[in-house]
Amino acid sequence: MKVLITGIDGYSGWPLALHLLGRGHEVAGIDNFVTRRRVREVGSWSATPIPTFARRQAVVRDLLGKEIGFHRGDLGRFDFVRHVLEVERPDAIVHLAEQRSAPYSMIDVHHAVATQVDNLTGTLHLLYAMRETAPQAHLVKMGTMGEYGTPNVDIPEGFFEIEYRGRKDQLPFPRQAGSWYHWSKVFDSGDVMFASKIWQLKATDVMQGVIYGIRTPEITDDRLLTRFDFDETWGTALNRFIAQAVLGLPITPYGRGGQRRGFIALEDSMQSLRLAVENPPDRGEYRVFNQFDAAYSINELAELAARIAIEIGLHPTIEHPPDPRIEAEEHYYQPLHDNLVGLGYRRTRELPDVTREIFRDLLRFRRRLEARRHVVQPTVQWASPDSRPALRARLPPRAPHPPENPDAPAGAHSPA
Amino acid sequence: MKVLITGIDGYSGWPLALHLLGRGHEVAGIDNFVTRRRVREVGSWSATPIPTFARRQAVVRDLLGKEIGFHRGDLGRFDFVRHVLEVERPDAIVHLAEQRSAPYSMIDVHHAVATQVDNLTGTLHLLYAMRETAPQAHLVKMGTMGEYGTPNVDIPEGFFEIEYRGRKDQLPFPRQAGSWYHWSKVFDSGDVMFASKIWQLKATDVMQGVIYGIRTPEITDDRLLTRFDFDETWGTALNRFIAQAVLGLPITPYGRGGQRRGFIALEDSMQSLRLAVENPPDRGEYRVFNQFDAAYSINELAELAARIAIEIGLHPTIEHPPDPRIEAEEHYYQPLHDNLVGLGYRRTRELPDVTREIFRDLLRFRRRLEARRHVVQPTVQWASPDSRPALRARLPPRAPHPPENPDAPAGAHSPA
Repeated sequence: MKVLITGIDGYSGWPLALHLLGRGHEVAGIDNFVTRRRVREVGSWSATPIPTFARRQAVVRDLLGKEIGFHRGDLGRFDFVRHVLEVERPDAIVHLAEQRSAPYSMIDVHHAVATQVDNLTGTLHLLYAMRETAPQAHLVKMGTMGEYGTPNVDIPEGFFEIEYRGRKDQLPFPRQAGSWYHWSKVFDSGDVMFASKIWQLKATDVMQGVIYGIRTPEITDDRLLTRFDFDETWGTALNRFIAQAVLGLPITPYGRGGQRRGFIALEDSMQSLRLAVENPPDRGEYRVFNQFDAAYSINELAELAARIAIEIGLHPTIEHPPDPRIEAEEHYYQPLHDNLVGLGYRRTRELPDVTREIFRDLLRFRRRLEARRHVVQPTVQWASPDSRPALRARLPPRAPHPPENPDAPAGAHSPA
Repeated sequence: MKVLITGIDGYSGWPLALHLLGRGHEVAGIDNFVTRRRVREVGSWSATPIPTFARRQAVVRDLLGKEIGFHRGDLGRFDFVRHVLEVERPDAIVHLAEQRSAPYSMIDVHHAVATQVDNLTGTLHLLYAMRETAPQAHLVKMGTMGEYGTPNVDIPEGFFEIEYRGRKDQLPFPRQAGSWYHWSKVFDSGDVMFASKIWQLKATDVMQGVIYGIRTPEITDDRLLTRFDFDETWGTALNRFIAQAVLGLPITPYGRGGQRRGFIALEDSMQSLRLAVENPPDRGEYRVFNQFDAAYSINELAELAARIAIEIGLHPTIEHPPDPRIEAEEHYYQPLHDNLVGLGYRRTRELPDVTREIFRDLLRFRRRLEARRHVVQPTVQWASPDSRPALRARLPPRAPHPPENPDAPAGAHSPA
């Protein structure tokens, strides 16, 4: 199959490209490298050193003898999107090219708008370009389990049959997202569902659980590593907990830590996306996969990280700062996830094993963590309309400006 | 109360301003006049001649001795929105400033994106500006009954209690919108609900039924008339049916005509919005009103328009063109609407009376309809990704270009 990956330079996009190549598929990708820029914007970087994309292509050529087609550009430009689809004629499009950080979307009004507008526009452009140039292609759209929030009932895969006031219907399960970012994924789900209906497109909407891990079997060389974020804005809770333990900072589950979420190993998420790609739905079918493997509470993750830190000789502590998010800190959580199992999904990695693996890699790259240790603790507050001052305050001081001399002519500086 | 109306120059915004002034409230408004431009874009205009906004203000000053504050500008500019809220310090904001046409949103990819991006950005900017400058204000947000689609169960007001797999919860009622425009309102509902939660804002989300009518008691002079659209893109089904009868065109209920929707008279919609404004919710409360008076099928509207046309000596015919929308043409439809009744809502106008009133006004402005008779019949197709050629084809031919003379030097034209 020919698979086009939007966001191929990202945390999931890159290992997915390697995984699909390994399975004999042809792979092409799109990226505008905005995640690299936005991680720099909040003062952070990837714990793993990652090569430029041109270098990544060259390494794949050298090590695997394979080519990855690449189109640098922005899904915000419709002509570009249509052009890429015309050139590549993909059988499947895995759409990962979205702003993916909840805290980033909550920084201030401009980050909120950019998140929702960019995500929504990219998806609409892809849908229209598919309708015009590739109506037989299958869209695998990356959403999030966070679209559902934490209802007090089981969470089905997208749709549920209900009885209400004596009548029955099969309806989309209600969404109650917890950040502007999570809402942007809800909006995408609406648009993809609607486009599938009016244009008879094939679509799989992936309610992705939180992914953990750095490695997949295809990452056989450090030059093939994917990015790994550990700062408060871009890193997941588990990533931050491990980074905190490595850096000797307290591990910080927010609030009471009873927040439960669905999780899946990077390798098993790649397995899942590949299963979706290799088993497309019919035309006009919009299906939803709850793509996670098991649910854990934030406290369970913190305790696991602490236990493994102790195993390897570190001295972790756990603190509970106030939750910067507005969310239930204790709640029912029981999402279903049968669709992928029906396609042959089997768990290949266990959370403790992967956590040990992450510790090993972060210890190797400890100097990169040390250089950014100030970006791990939380500053973005859901209740605040502007977290930029807090974000700026934690960045290391720049070289001080020379004191101004009021007697000097405009534009001149006295020597420092 | 001080009420800020965004979209004050529009079909609902203008009569709402007059109604609130009549009830002793202070009124200020925002508009960028984009609806006037977009109606011209599709080759149409308002059946009623409408003055410039400056003229509207002057007429209100002359006839009523009242001032309407006005800020010309775009909700897409956050600094502008925040500035207006700082200056006006409103008790309530009635947010009507959105692209409101489903067919307009379905013209092509650019109209789809503009609709969703503009509507979503304006609402986000308002929410952030409220949080920063007017957190005690009450947002009355114009949504649409079309957010719900046509489920096979009763439609509650925003939320419903369900039992699923043995557990219960109160959840948002699922949304199944039928156009990019309707989805944009779903997205707004998500953002307003979330902002109310994280910032303790007061919000009323109005699931507005289709409004019919030209007049309210406050429109005592032709210079106070509101706009009235009758073209396929901007006019409602009833508006188009009456215009078709006046123009001697066939009345065209789409498809089988069994599509049922909720409707409300313009005057009663203004009553409803005023009741919402005068009875704000508590801080942190997000409430939903299904704001319609009665449900009718498209066939019932067509037959009503035809019956009244015959009463007044016209010779209407009814035709059923294929439905350009992708929607159920026969379906269950039973939305609840008790919240406004609980605040004192009472129906003051009956559909047949208002329909007669619209006929009288459109006959008075018949020459304006005649001049735009080519824009009433449908061209925008839901199944097509680009309806611009069809839209262009129905516009009256411009003066023909002179034939090109291949022998003439570049830039020269032979005489026609």
